[in-house]
Amino acid sequence: MSRKALPQPAREEIRVEAVLQALGEPVRLQIIRALAGAPDGIACGEIELPVTPSTRAHHLRILREAGVLTTHTEGTRRISSLRREDLDTLYPGLLTGILTARQ
Amino acid sequence: MSRKALPQPAREEIRVEAVLQALGEPVRLQIIRALAGAPDGIACGEIELPVTPSTRAHHLRILREAGVLTTHTEGTRRISSLRREDLDTLYPGLLTGILTARQ
Repeated sequence: MSRKALPQPAREEIRVEAVLQALGEPVRLQIIRALAGAPDGIACGEIELPVTPSTRAHHLRILREAGVLTTHTEGTRRISSLRREDLDTLYPGLLTGILTARQ
Repeated sequence: MSRKALPQPAREEIRVEAVLQALGEPVRLQIIRALAGAPDGIACGEIELPVTPSTRAHHLRILREAGVLTTHTEGTRRISSLRREDLDTLYPGLLTGILTARQ
């Protein structure tokens, strides 16, 4: 099956402002909470979200372009997962601190 | 000297989305980096920032209303400091992760 990664910043291109802006939105926080529990990634349509498909796609793109998640295609599916290692290396504690927050 | 705290959310009213939104801006990150090195607080005008006084005041208000910093008046001065204990309790690691980021 063809597998292709969508465009994303390299680790050294990730900027903390962009990461924080991307995360500071309720639906996007819901997405990263879902991904945090799925180290192998989740098909984008399978995350339960109270938004339309196009809004969902928009939020996933913001998170990808900020460097928070990575997305690849598997045939016709898009699988996303958190860039946990990159974020933990760049900003140790940041992601854990956010995931710890009461919702 | 009269000392009065400006309005701010109580710890239990702080929301992670608001904190992340407040922090996801270059000037505001510059402010929290300055405050992180000054546990007793800094007079607002003394933080070197490439912005006008009204923009500075705007950014400080966003950070205060999100619960990131606390500001009190001492006579005619406004002294701000990070709400480090509140943030470290609510989101352990978050602030450290952000302050660790290369600038």
